[in-house]
Amino acid sequence: MTDATAVADVLTRVRERAPLVHCMTNIVVAGFTANVLLALGASPAMVENREESADFASAADALLVNLGTLTDERADAMRVAARAAQTSGTPWILDPVAVGGLGYRTRLAAELVAAKPTVVRGNASEVISLAGGAGAARGVDSTLGAQAAEAEAEALLSKGVGAVAVSGPVDLITDGVQTWRIANGDPLMTRVTGVGCALGAVVAACAAVETSPVLASVAATAIMTIAAEHAVQKSAGPGSFAVRLIDDLSTLDPVDIARELRA
Amino acid sequence: MTDATAVADVLTRVRERAPLVHCMTNIVVAGFTANVLLALGASPAMVENREESADFASAADALLVNLGTLTDERADAMRVAARAAQTSGTPWILDPVAVGGLGYRTRLAAELVAAKPTVVRGNASEVISLAGGAGAARGVDSTLGAQAAEAEAEALLSKGVGAVAVSGPVDLITDGVQTWRIANGDPLMTRVTGVGCALGAVVAACAAVETSPVLASVAATAIMTIAAEHAVQKSAGPGSFAVRLIDDLSTLDPVDIARELRA
Amino acid sequence: MTDATAVADVLTRVRERAPLVHCMTNIVVAGFTANVLLALGASPAMVENREESADFASAADALLVNLGTLTDERADAMRVAARAAQTSGTPWILDPVAVGGLGYRTRLAAELVAAKPTVVRGNASEVISLAGGAGAARGVDSTLGAQAAEAEAEALLSKGVGAVAVSGPVDLITDGVQTWRIANGDPLMTRVTGVGCALGAVVAACAAVETSPVLASVAATAIMTIAAEHAVQKSAGPGSFAVRLIDDLSTLDPVDIARELRA
Repeated sequence: MTDATAVADVLTRVRERAPLVHCMTNIVVAGFTANVLLALGASPAMVENREESADFASAADALLVNLGTLTDERADAMRVAARAAQTSGTPWILDPVAVGGLGYRTRLAAELVAAKPTVVRGNASEVISLAGGAGAARGVDSTLGAQAAEAEAEALLSKGVGAVAVSGPVDLITDGVQTWRIANGDPLMTRVTGVGCALGAVVAACAAVETSPVLASVAATAIMTIAAEHAVQKSAGPGSFAVRLIDDLSTLDPVDIARELRA
Repeated sequence: MTDATAVADVLTRVRERAPLVHCMTNIVVAGFTANVLLALGASPAMVENREESADFASAADALLVNLGTLTDERADAMRVAARAAQTSGTPWILDPVAVGGLGYRTRLAAELVAAKPTVVRGNASEVISLAGGAGAARGVDSTLGAQAAEAEAEALLSKGVGAVAVSGPVDLITDGVQTWRIANGDPLMTRVTGVGCALGAVVAACAAVETSPVLASVAATAIMTIAAEHAVQKSAGPGSFAVRLIDDLSTLDPVDIARELRA
Repeated sequence: MTDATAVADVLTRVRERAPLVHCMTNIVVAGFTANVLLALGASPAMVENREESADFASAADALLVNLGTLTDERADAMRVAARAAQTSGTPWILDPVAVGGLGYRTRLAAELVAAKPTVVRGNASEVISLAGGAGAARGVDSTLGAQAAEAEAEALLSKGVGAVAVSGPVDLITDGVQTWRIANGDPLMTRVTGVGCALGAVVAACAAVETSPVLASVAATAIMTIAAEHAVQKSAGPGSFAVRLIDDLSTLDPVDIARELRA
């Protein structure tokens, strides 16, 4: 199998196994995230309270922890879920939304890193801040290219993170041994809320069926960015793009991934 | 009036009376649920805190209690709202999302049944679990057909529930006297988040204008599944299907319900 | 510059400056609101916990406080954010969703008015109730025309509110010196959840780049209602209208605003 067909094969396995993905995510993107996972054939379940999160994270095939619209209850639930995932061997993804600018979530994110996420996925500013550096965020967007976070990605790997996926015009994905740079995608992805957050959920779905964190992250990035390239062709703006992206995720052919991946 | 025209007439009354539906639902589907109700001419209002829920449930024309993305505050608010609905005679619908797999919400759901919901709407696994049996859920989806829950639906009716509506490829709806099996719908309904949850809200809207719980449930199921059949014809996948479903709910002709109902 | 071109120029500045808008809004409309802001070129960020809201409101270019799906934690966060905005000079918008019918949020809204919002945006019933009168709401919709709230808008201005924008078939916007009546828009706007709430967010984005509260409110109203008129032409119902509205906001030409404004 070539690298590109190995990437494409992860999508085939997601569809075959329909992994149950426990999503702890924010109120802005929860519906869109669920629809992205359903379009890919995965089974999303949003559970975010203290009482249920540990049991559910242990039983699920993968866990996503996304720090948007954080509340105290959600933060507590994330702590127990991350620990339960670590203990039970459930692959889990940390998306450190807006870490850096805000002390409360930056401290929580540092705690969560101690539970050794399988993958950290964020933009350059978030990854830099999570590693203890000074990011350049204002709000939830980053002005930096993904490559700016390369050293900080290494720092996170040294703390036991399985792989780091940094989003940007060219995505950077590394586990310290392999480093991928993926040039697929379209600027319209940044004009729809939740595309990055949903990518975190797709990484979780892929990590449920692929034990290599870096390959799972590359596959998820390829799936989202190539489907986005297809959707842009049929869109009149960000509204119709979001709708078409869901359609195109549901029909995306693994052969297209292997052929269109620019890595 | 034939049975089918009686079903269709409920939609006419929803549009004429624009019932105010108090929705206590989850963060994943709240927007989609509101848009479904607005498309049908009902008036949705989402109120979910302890302070306001009892008063609002008493004043509304119907109440929906959906257990997705449960939190402690929401659980408390649901308890008082359900009691207030029971006391004031507001019809109210319980959607026991993911009950069975998770002890916390299973206990809450059992408490809520004591406030005698007008209708319980769920999938087979949820209904079986709510009745005290061992469901077969993993996450929020059920692998069982609706018919598997027939005995447990009877058990819920014996506790004072007005009707039970079990979703599946063929929907089962019963009040112990009448039992309906509805074969409308499309598999794409399971690939969009919130279609089942929104059906619970439509049951609430119908129960606001129709005193028979079983007829209200049948009408709601007919409305959603027949509009879905129309929408599928114009869809390129789950993204465009969700958009078209809202359009087709807004234009659905009661005559089409009477003609296309497969019950 | 004519009045109409001054209005249109605000959109140009939103696109040039990409203001960071801190949104404290409800679970029903958070995603749609973010997509509306992104379509206009603004940068939305939803932060709603006690720990982060004051700092974030001080750093943002504008703040939106929307009282839908209120909880205790969100209410506390809103109090500190509004005070922080007042102290730091961040323009901030209050959207008093469903104030009047519900005592809990009516008391909170009165407290928030003491922090002198730059703009209050609501329907007639909400504005009347906020000013201490007896509104006519049932749920979240108003049966009154905007003109019914003219006296109460004046009362709010006398408490230090910068401008009041009352939505209705003809929108009323006043700062006590200038009064605008805007006849653009379409009834379909009331059949999609969140159009009014998103308008509050657009007022915030405009207030970030325009120091006159009344001109910012007029510009935001013109942007939403004129884009809606464009979107209706391409819609088959409320589902496709919501999608097209996002598309048309992203491509709206300031020249069209100046030409099509009916004020």
